[in-house]
Amino acid sequence: MSLRLGDIVDALGGSLEGGARDTRIERIAPLQSAGPADLSFLNNPRYAAQLATSRAACVIVAPALRGQALARGACIVTPDPYAYFARATQLWARTQGLAPAPGIHPSAVVHPEARVAASASIGPLCVVERGAVVGEHTVLKSRVSVGERCRIGARCILHPGVVIGADGFGFAPEGGAWLKIEQLGAVVIGDDVEIGANTCIDRGALEDTVIEDGVKLDNLIQIAHNVRIGRHTAMAGCTAVAGSTQIGAHCTIAGAASIIGHLSIAERTHISTNTVVMRSITQPGGHYTGVFPMDDNAHWEKNAATLRQLYRLRERVKALEQQRQDDSGSLEQ
Amino acid sequence: MSLRLGDIVDALGGSLEGGARDTRIERIAPLQSAGPADLSFLNNPRYAAQLATSRAACVIVAPALRGQALARGACIVTPDPYAYFARATQLWARTQGLAPAPGIHPSAVVHPEARVAASASIGPLCVVERGAVVGEHTVLKSRVSVGERCRIGARCILHPGVVIGADGFGFAPEGGAWLKIEQLGAVVIGDDVEIGANTCIDRGALEDTVIEDGVKLDNLIQIAHNVRIGRHTAMAGCTAVAGSTQIGAHCTIAGAASIIGHLSIAERTHISTNTVVMRSITQPGGHYTGVFPMDDNAHWEKNAATLRQLYRLRERVKALEQQRQDDSGSLEQ
Amino acid sequence: MSLRLGDIVDALGGSLEGGARDTRIERIAPLQSAGPADLSFLNNPRYAAQLATSRAACVIVAPALRGQALARGACIVTPDPYAYFARATQLWARTQGLAPAPGIHPSAVVHPEARVAASASIGPLCVVERGAVVGEHTVLKSRVSVGERCRIGARCILHPGVVIGADGFGFAPEGGAWLKIEQLGAVVIGDDVEIGANTCIDRGALEDTVIEDGVKLDNLIQIAHNVRIGRHTAMAGCTAVAGSTQIGAHCTIAGAASIIGHLSIAERTHISTNTVVMRSITQPGGHYTGVFPMDDNAHWEKNAATLRQLYRLRERVKALEQQRQDDSGSLEQ
Repeated sequence: MSLRLGDIVDALGGSLEGGARDTRIERIAPLQSAGPADLSFLNNPRYAAQLATSRAACVIVAPALRGQALARGACIVTPDPYAYFARATQLWARTQGLAPAPGIHPSAVVHPEARVAASASIGPLCVVERGAVVGEHTVLKSRVSVGERCRIGARCILHPGVVIGADGFGFAPEGGAWLKIEQLGAVVIGDDVEIGANTCIDRGALEDTVIEDGVKLDNLIQIAHNVRIGRHTAMAGCTAVAGSTQIGAHCTIAGAASIIGHLSIAERTHISTNTVVMRSITQPGGHYTGVFPMDDNAHWEKNAATLRQLYRLRERVKALEQQRQDDSGSLEQ
Repeated sequence: MSLRLGDIVDALGGSLEGGARDTRIERIAPLQSAGPADLSFLNNPRYAAQLATSRAACVIVAPALRGQALARGACIVTPDPYAYFARATQLWARTQGLAPAPGIHPSAVVHPEARVAASASIGPLCVVERGAVVGEHTVLKSRVSVGERCRIGARCILHPGVVIGADGFGFAPEGGAWLKIEQLGAVVIGDDVEIGANTCIDRGALEDTVIEDGVKLDNLIQIAHNVRIGRHTAMAGCTAVAGSTQIGAHCTIAGAASIIGHLSIAERTHISTNTVVMRSITQPGGHYTGVFPMDDNAHWEKNAATLRQLYRLRERVKALEQQRQDDSGSLEQ
Repeated sequence: MSLRLGDIVDALGGSLEGGARDTRIERIAPLQSAGPADLSFLNNPRYAAQLATSRAACVIVAPALRGQALARGACIVTPDPYAYFARATQLWARTQGLAPAPGIHPSAVVHPEARVAASASIGPLCVVERGAVVGEHTVLKSRVSVGERCRIGARCILHPGVVIGADGFGFAPEGGAWLKIEQLGAVVIGDDVEIGANTCIDRGALEDTVIEDGVKLDNLIQIAHNVRIGRHTAMAGCTAVAGSTQIGAHCTIAGAASIIGHLSIAERTHISTNTVVMRSITQPGGHYTGVFPMDDNAHWEKNAATLRQLYRLRERVKALEQQRQDDSGSLEQ
């Protein structure tokens, strides 16, 4: 499979300079490993030095780097090279026929009372339970489970092993045992949502768990019951969000973070990797972190031992300060 | 689907006051969002103020709040409103026919030498291997795997994607490579256990991994080989328990905690979210925590940098204290 | 099922002493719980005291413990008892016919353009997509997904729920939304790799994600796109490796660790449990840790509050030191 440079700019725009429309492109590749039949891109001006040595047939660049790029060979000039690159990968996938065909794979188990759009693709060994809804052009890869009454919007992608609508974790203690609280809500997922492999989104206890339009969730994420995730928020792998927490729009949550339950996180918040969010965040656009810095094990052991006495250390400093102040007082006498 | 208030108290007890037995209930809903056809409940007296403004048809309350509840309208008075609410959700699920029917779904793969109780429900695309046992009224939702010789008790619920009896992670190092230690034990799960989506419980190396009666595990939990979890212990999502650790009864382990291997945790221990348990806990009923506090990223950077020098900081304080003492000594001379 | 001691040494070597070749072994068991028909082993000389009281029929020991072992009864003497034990479990599994039969289970969905070795075993309800390759003697247990064009070497074991080749998490921001970067690479897995239940390995964005020979991954691990894991590296459960990170050979990564993206980790590095690796490690053979020490909750609260003021505390110590120095200066005058 290959595409001509001319086909690419016809489909995606941008201006092809210093190269021929007929040049065949076999692959999209990073600048450093691209060969003479490859299309590449330069997003970060910090890597402009790599441009000169790249063997790529053509490089996607921003206007500011047009001169440097032309000195090397063909380029496509466009205001946002990274977005252009993303669209090029989409064009590539379409051209190579990588998109799954619409329809329900014969091995999938779809309840007769589920509603699946004709343009949706339900992959092998998926399960869609009674009353569930799958929207237009949505793709369930292999082995996805969608529970009863859960609704998935249009143009979503659910990767293998995703579980939508398992019961939320709700129990009432009674006499030392746990009474199950049946989870009577469902999960509602908007349009253009992507959900990574083996990620779980639990149904709500009484009302629904909601994932708004454009949300992107990576693999092995846990979304507990009655959580709401705002539009276009992205969350990296292995993150956990506990029950009833509301996350605003356009947040970015790095991998393996944890957000405890019943919090409210303002829009455009950025949470660093492995950070545990234990209080609500009301100011939009903040950046929060809480990670124990890694160290050589021997150093860590010393520092960790001291950390367990940190409050005492503060008291000792306070005592020294007090003594110091007493001295000054007596000197002033 | 709806139920009359009279049906509810007939089934669950409690005393209906200030309302008519014939009132139809369409839904169970939280106090704040409940409408005039909804049953709600008040568990925490702190939220008693919400009572006055709730539009619920009827509210489940404790005797102490009977007066306030009646001032508003109908209520069901019961000593433990939360447990009553749990039972109401169960009644609801039964009435709506949400419980899965007994039997083995035709798409499930059940080995002829597995033993599945007639009242159990094996959902779509489950796998039950040779010699496995599934007890009375136990429900395997979709896409659950139960490995060879693993035994699951009565009235358990296993959510989609659960894996029971994958091999424990056991290897002997030899010449720079790893020799597999075949995992010859199994998994034994008691009665009334619930296991969340995509949770994994590994088989033991030589003896069995054991989950005792009434244990509740949330989603995406990892239970390693030869772990034993005591009766009625509950564990929230994304927690990991390493090999051979023994956890007592009635513990509560919050989400994303980690318990390293070969430890023993006393009964009724409470572990906070994201806490790493690195030593045994012998005293029952304790509450343990170890979480790096989240902060504004800029503050965190400063504090983390200092943390890496914490031991040195303690040495500096010690030196100041020593100098101080030396001073006092010389003053006393 | 049982084996005679003579069969065991014939198959695995070692010298049987103080016992009869005809003794029947019913089970392999730990020293403490072994009964009179069980084979056991002693790896760690620290537990030599357990030898005297063990009821095992025969104990695998190193030459140094031969005397102590013979004083008790039969033993097999071998230079590396733990490796011998591993081989004994393998012999056991073979003898008991625990190894899965070659072939494709009728419930598995294997694309006609996938290539599966005749000696491979594809378990129930697995999915092998177009262009995927599964090597000789490789075993896919139940419910494994192998995506398009992904390649798995020989003698690998993939446990239930494993997902190979889901899309990496790649999006370009544009106007507040996310543009999908189609993931055009694949996953390449070497020989003798074992992958635990529900673990996910994403396909590369443009090039491949690579797992080299002999790597062992536990359950619920997340390997992001374009990661490379070097030969014989082992990683315990719930660990996450972010995009494009390169991990050297013979590393051991404990459970629930996190390695952020675009790093390079030297060979033979050991990372402790729950440690967040935020910078590259260039020196081979190091041991790194970063874990908040667990404490009684009340102590933790005090220490955590102080930690949030740690930088200030350092400033206060510095001020005290400065004052001290000023004093000395004035005293010297």
